[in-house]
Amino acid sequence: MPSIAATAELALLLEVASAPTPGNVDRERDLPDLRFEQFLAGATGAREGFELAAEGERVGRALERAVVGMADVAGENTQFGSVLLLSPLVRAAADGDLTPGGATAVAKETTVADAVDFYRAFDHAEVRVSDPPDGMDDLDVRRGSEAIPAVEERGLTLFEILAKGSDRDGIAREWIGGFERTFRAAELLANARGSLSDRAAAVHLRLLAAEPDSLVETVHGPVVAEEVSDRAAALVGNGDPEAVREFAVELIDREINPGTTADILAGGLFVALHREVVSI
Amino acid sequence: MPSIAATAELALLLEVASAPTPGNVDRERDLPDLRFEQFLAGATGAREGFELAAEGERVGRALERAVVGMADVAGENTQFGSVLLLSPLVRAAADGDLTPGGATAVAKETTVADAVDFYRAFDHAEVRVSDPPDGMDDLDVRRGSEAIPAVEERGLTLFEILAKGSDRDGIAREWIGGFERTFRAAELLANARGSLSDRAAAVHLRLLAAEPDSLVETVHGPVVAEEVSDRAAALVGNGDPEAVREFAVELIDREINPGTTADILAGGLFVALHREVVSI
Repeated sequence: MPSIAATAELALLLEVASAPTPGNVDRERDLPDLRFEQFLAGATGAREGFELAAEGERVGRALERAVVGMADVAGENTQFGSVLLLSPLVRAAADGDLTPGGATAVAKETTVADAVDFYRAFDHAEVRVSDPPDGMDDLDVRRGSEAIPAVEERGLTLFEILAKGSDRDGIAREWIGGFERTFRAAELLANARGSLSDRAAAVHLRLLAAEPDSLVETVHGPVVAEEVSDRAAALVGNGDPEAVREFAVELIDREINPGTTADILAGGLFVALHREVVSI
Repeated sequence: MPSIAATAELALLLEVASAPTPGNVDRERDLPDLRFEQFLAGATGAREGFELAAEGERVGRALERAVVGMADVAGENTQFGSVLLLSPLVRAAADGDLTPGGATAVAKETTVADAVDFYRAFDHAEVRVSDPPDGMDDLDVRRGSEAIPAVEERGLTLFEILAKGSDRDGIAREWIGGFERTFRAAELLANARGSLSDRAAAVHLRLLAAEPDSLVETVHGPVVAEEVSDRAAALVGNGDPEAVREFAVELIDREINPGTTADILAGGLFVALHREVVSI
């Protein structure tokens, strides 16, 4: 059996290798400013953080280490959202309870110290996020460690911080909402046909069709995010791989990058691999 | 700084991701019986063995662990030769002396116990090798652990075992001959142009042009191996990527797989990354 951390790293690698995943870097396509090999490097760099989570280290510290390792080796923010999603899942797997309940328990047990780690992680990676809600400018994650005094003063845990962002960010929503889409993605992967990378590409399209991508919404607004989801929905099950590839080219030309959907896919790959309901 | 083991794993990943590497699995092409994602999986599985080597564990044991991990996760022998080449290099890097002399010292320090580990590794992976020299049938690596009594009786170290195979196997030749092509590949990578994966593809072609691939020789004989090298030589520097791609398609159609050349490239990538003469 591979280690839990190795499986988490492999989930990152399989996510980026699966193609086509329209708008995202994949085996077939780079983005102008992000190349495939940077994602490979980012995955190798994140593993040490996953190892900490698997050893029972607190989730925030594991997450921070994974982000620092990722950014250090990749030279860019390649997989911040995936790492944020995978950290509690890895810890839940190490606790022997990789279920919505087990992962939610890990999420709810986070403390202010985890929130502080989380803010520090933003010092190492440029992450595209929405503006914070009214009255919460002091908690803007883009301030990185400068926001730590405000976090400590308000006594907010990582779970509470993410709860505040859950209406705007799809990964925060997973943390708060029982990791519903992640576990659903694992089921879809198990039930899909073909090689694991074919399954992953099919599930990416279905996830994108089912819900507007929160990163697309942040960068391009809700109308574009809805349009992209509707277009994906029209392609699901139409069985024309060329049409999906044309969609991929169009999204990259328009600089539309459904990164949250890719992150959820990485989470689903981890769950499916760890449960051994899919194989390489 | 990423860990030495992480860098070794990344070298495996970058090798398989670089394209085109004619005849080998790469970002653009699978083989009929070996898919790209199996190499990603194999790399994640090998890392634990590299970690042992980096911690000073004996090279044989680290190698065996890397092979077992690779085969366990990939479900196939994806990178046996690369792992055999990287194990002493990782150990030399951990000793602070990743040079031809440092790596050769590690190779020469191997014992009978390392040879025993090496034979055990063959129980976990199907490796295509030549028949053993006359009078050495009892040492045929394809016998795996069944050959261990003969190894012990003859009191052969891993270095001595590889010395006996060095006229037939390009990786054994590296171990015995100061890792010459590996360090040369690192230099070529540093001096090439373009992204690291472009450099890696260019160096793969140059390595193939410079010396017939020993795996091709084992499987198809010396005439085909010479022909493939001559064809590669004609393409080096001709600057036509389409011609290289046509060559890649032809080799895969003919089931010609220059795996030793890919292994040397992986070794060169490790040296170049560790020395920081290339970057992602």
